[in-house]
Amino acid sequence: MGITVNARCTCSPRDPFKAYKVERRDLGPRDVLIDIAYAGICHSDIDHAFGTRGKAIFPLVPGHEIAGIVSAVGCDVTKFIVGDRAGVGCIVDSCRVCPDCLAGLEQYCSGKLVMTYNSVDRHGQPTHGGYSEKIVVDEDFVLRIPEAIPLQNAAPLFCAGITLYSPLRHWQAGPGKRVAIVGFGGLGHIGVQIAHALGAHTTVLDLTLAKQEDGLRMGADDYRATTDPATFTELANSFDLIVSTVPGSFDLDAFLSLLRRDGTFVNLGVPQKPLNLAAFSLLNNRRSMAGTLSGGLRETQAMIDFCAKHGIAAQVEIIGADQIDEAYERLLAGDVRYRFVIDVSTM
Amino acid sequence: MGITVNARCTCSPRDPFKAYKVERRDLGPRDVLIDIAYAGICHSDIDHAFGTRGKAIFPLVPGHEIAGIVSAVGCDVTKFIVGDRAGVGCIVDSCRVCPDCLAGLEQYCSGKLVMTYNSVDRHGQPTHGGYSEKIVVDEDFVLRIPEAIPLQNAAPLFCAGITLYSPLRHWQAGPGKRVAIVGFGGLGHIGVQIAHALGAHTTVLDLTLAKQEDGLRMGADDYRATTDPATFTELANSFDLIVSTVPGSFDLDAFLSLLRRDGTFVNLGVPQKPLNLAAFSLLNNRRSMAGTLSGGLRETQAMIDFCAKHGIAAQVEIIGADQIDEAYERLLAGDVRYRFVIDVSTM
Repeated sequence: MGITVNARCTCSPRDPFKAYKVERRDLGPRDVLIDIAYAGICHSDIDHAFGTRGKAIFPLVPGHEIAGIVSAVGCDVTKFIVGDRAGVGCIVDSCRVCPDCLAGLEQYCSGKLVMTYNSVDRHGQPTHGGYSEKIVVDEDFVLRIPEAIPLQNAAPLFCAGITLYSPLRHWQAGPGKRVAIVGFGGLGHIGVQIAHALGAHTTVLDLTLAKQEDGLRMGADDYRATTDPATFTELANSFDLIVSTVPGSFDLDAFLSLLRRDGTFVNLGVPQKPLNLAAFSLLNNRRSMAGTLSGGLRETQAMIDFCAKHGIAAQVEIIGADQIDEAYERLLAGDVRYRFVIDVSTM
Repeated sequence: MGITVNARCTCSPRDPFKAYKVERRDLGPRDVLIDIAYAGICHSDIDHAFGTRGKAIFPLVPGHEIAGIVSAVGCDVTKFIVGDRAGVGCIVDSCRVCPDCLAGLEQYCSGKLVMTYNSVDRHGQPTHGGYSEKIVVDEDFVLRIPEAIPLQNAAPLFCAGITLYSPLRHWQAGPGKRVAIVGFGGLGHIGVQIAHALGAHTTVLDLTLAKQEDGLRMGADDYRATTDPATFTELANSFDLIVSTVPGSFDLDAFLSLLRRDGTFVNLGVPQKPLNLAAFSLLNNRRSMAGTLSGGLRETQAMIDFCAKHGIAAQVEIIGADQIDEAYERLLAGDVRYRFVIDVSTM
């Protein structure tokens, strides 16, 4: 039973990707079948594929930045019809009854949360992500993609976009606030557009000034190199909110010193080693540090509608299915402007 | 000129305390002269005296938990008259014009902040603290002590009390909130009383259950030993707010795991080594970690009024001026219930 679709998988940590067949379940009453057009490549795909974020379930079909077209719907589906433009992010199911789910914060579900890949669904089956031709998802976990955003530019918004939008909204980036985005890559380049559209004074803090022109064009008011010590003296005690997209280790105390009183540093990255934190970095100026994980379904829909309204989209480099390994290497080297997206028609 | 008063000082890191004469300035128009009755011993006194928190100014006269009686006032003083019960905390002057001072948060003054000791005042003179018979302070930095609180029990409130009250109020401890106080010592035993009086469900997390009876008597709803691993499994994801008074190193990730969604861990301690922080400790449950430094003047007055109203006070052990070295040793060994207070009449 089910539908067999072409996919790409990796069979053990750091193994090259190869062609694979994934079985998608038959449509349940509330399920939506999506013909995937594009799947973004997220840094966490690499973490899972390389086994650097705990033990993954192999064969692994990553991909949680999915954009496509609805090609079938279950008998009780009310939110989608065939032909709709549809997206899927990091989450494909949750318990729906815990306080977190009821608050629309399914990403913190304290019951049974099912991730789009490398997870086990409520039927006990491993989940497989967007590096595949089709996917079946409960309609409650499917997002609508506004016409204004091309599918290839929409796909990365379902992880990179919501991962920035959620903290920027939660910590109230907006007029009168000074916001810094650390790292100008797949996440950062969307974060800058969102922070700017929210009305915040927006600064990019990247290793070098190599991408400064893009940053300013996308809405940054200021763009500084973190390899220049003057950045840390000139911008000391100046930000209300700093959102770091850096996936590896960094000098946390140095970034905290840039926060003004009651400012918050939000870390989105998952460095493999613990961060070091000097107590006075937070005591001074009553600073806070926080973390967030993507966003809930309601907020993800709000995010993509906001992006459509404000002309925000991911800038992407489209690759074929045979180029996934190469893309991983290039992403790790920082050589992409700004998100790789797999053209799933090449699968 | 000025007034010469008996004091106790230490002349170099870890040097024993000895008798010393401190010159207090002549009363300026807005100055208050306080005859000190009691001075609390704070852990940070030891850090400064031992040189473990940067270079101190020697001879050092510590003490920023001061309670006494006004014995003279300058010609323009309006808030105090001779005979008033008066207290002084960590701060004796600030710039008064920066946004922090204007917000009543003088402890974060971005202009010229003058600490009660180990600081340099606006006349360029080193400041000397409460281990002395008298002190001269601008009336704006003097607190009123309500009649309900004996002076010896009031003194520690000006550092230990406000250091707990401020974060408990800022992060909204109150009815329906689950609050944990880590460490049941000089700070913690006041924190428990305040959290309880604010209406929060209050848990003490101390190394052992040795002081459980006192904790429950002072208002704790629950009291757990952090040396018992069951504490961390049973209380996982359960607190809205954790306030840590631990002065040394601790397992930050373990304590963060006790926070529910959107919970905050506030660290008040200053361990000498950096803390280690795993990124997922904050990413999960959208947790925050923060720090605070004592409190502003308005809030300190509100704190002591709140304590008077709710019957909150420091439980103290009164010592003579010759026992300071011994008290330091006992405090470092955790052997005090719960705050040493120097009887300044023995100076």
